[in-house]
Amino acid sequence: MSRPNRSEIDTLIDLLARLPGLGPRSARRAVLFLIRKRGILLQPLAEAMQAVAQNARECLNCGNVGTTEICEICSDDTRANGLLCVVEDVADLWAMERAGAFRGRYHVLGGTLSALDGVGPDELRIPQLKDRIAGEEITEVILALNQTVDGQTTAHYIADQIEDRVALSSLAQGVPIGGELDYLDDGTIGAALNARKRL
Amino acid sequence: MSRPNRSEIDTLIDLLARLPGLGPRSARRAVLFLIRKRGILLQPLAEAMQAVAQNARECLNCGNVGTTEICEICSDDTRANGLLCVVEDVADLWAMERAGAFRGRYHVLGGTLSALDGVGPDELRIPQLKDRIAGEEITEVILALNQTVDGQTTAHYIADQIEDRVALSSLAQGVPIGGELDYLDDGTIGAALNARKRL
Ligand SMILES: [Zn+2]
Ligand SMILES: [Zn+2]
Repeated sequence: MSRPNRSEIDTLIDLLARLPGLGPRSARRAVLFLIRKRGILLQPLAEAMQAVAQNARECLNCGNVGTTEICEICSDDTRANGLLCVVEDVADLWAMERAGAFRGRYHVLGGTLSALDGVGPDELRIPQLKDRIAGEEITEVILALNQTVDGQTTAHYIADQIEDRVALSSLAQGVPIGGELDYLDDGTIGAALNARKRL
Repeated sequence: MSRPNRSEIDTLIDLLARLPGLGPRSARRAVLFLIRKRGILLQPLAEAMQAVAQNARECLNCGNVGTTEICEICSDDTRANGLLCVVEDVADLWAMERAGAFRGRYHVLGGTLSALDGVGPDELRIPQLKDRIAGEEITEVILALNQTVDGQTTAHYIADQIEDRVALSSLAQGVPIGGELDYLDDGTIGAALNARKRL
């Protein structure tokens, strides 16, 4: 393969190919597309990445991603206190927000329990969840975990840990079996939230 | 939707979603992935994009993309003069180079003729091709255009224009009908090149 001095372009292709959903071929296509749209897309993208690299951070309280130490949801006075929605990851939090049906607070676990992968409660944000329930006077926790085996195992584990302290609910059936929140349309998420059932 | 102050992250998602092969959902996934891998992926990617935005340019001679006024292939003394491979776009040139079977020079048309889209010879790099054939004393031209209707129409048009001046060949059958170079494995491209037939 003879591509001397194309190193900067090759570097960009190699890095882009590491993104989920892209491979070497689509990365090459993307780079040629970016070079053609240098001013309106490549340059702004470089700057946006630089800004996010410098400013993105995980909320110390809930695990959401934002640009402040405490995220905007945690510091939003208009949102209901005492009501906490537990999700697996930030993508699920964003999916809930897109649905626009929930006005309480969130807690991002950062994954699910998995004996196979050696993920125990302390690898997730479960200790912090218990702290928040006490410290923020949480009265209701909605377990909005994915309807997967690991998601439901994690939901049961958390329910065991906190059921004597708060009202617990999970999203209503409506979330398809085996389905993941981030794949659902907003209406389905909203309906499942409104029809949530007590555990 | 309540996402105040996530504007830098939202901007990045929106820009990434404009890449071919990505949509809003995969862009969101990619951004969360990038934030998790900030040091080893997001920061290097921002810098690589900046470098490419500043340095990438189209070779004045052949239309390849590189970081110099005349690309490395055009200025490589070890490559055969007099032998020119005509391709539709830079992705096809890169596919030929990956196959490693060609050691001449290239000419990138920048597309195909298309009456429907109003693409005539002057919208492509066809005048420059004629100039190069004269100026660089080209004796053989390989028309490595895609086996599509537009690709073959363009090949016939070019053949008409230059057949009295150079030996013409096209890639051998072996390129599947309807197929595009950039989708082929390297071996197929190499075999088709070696078995190229005179027109
Ligand atoms: Zn937060
Ligand atoms: Zn060149």
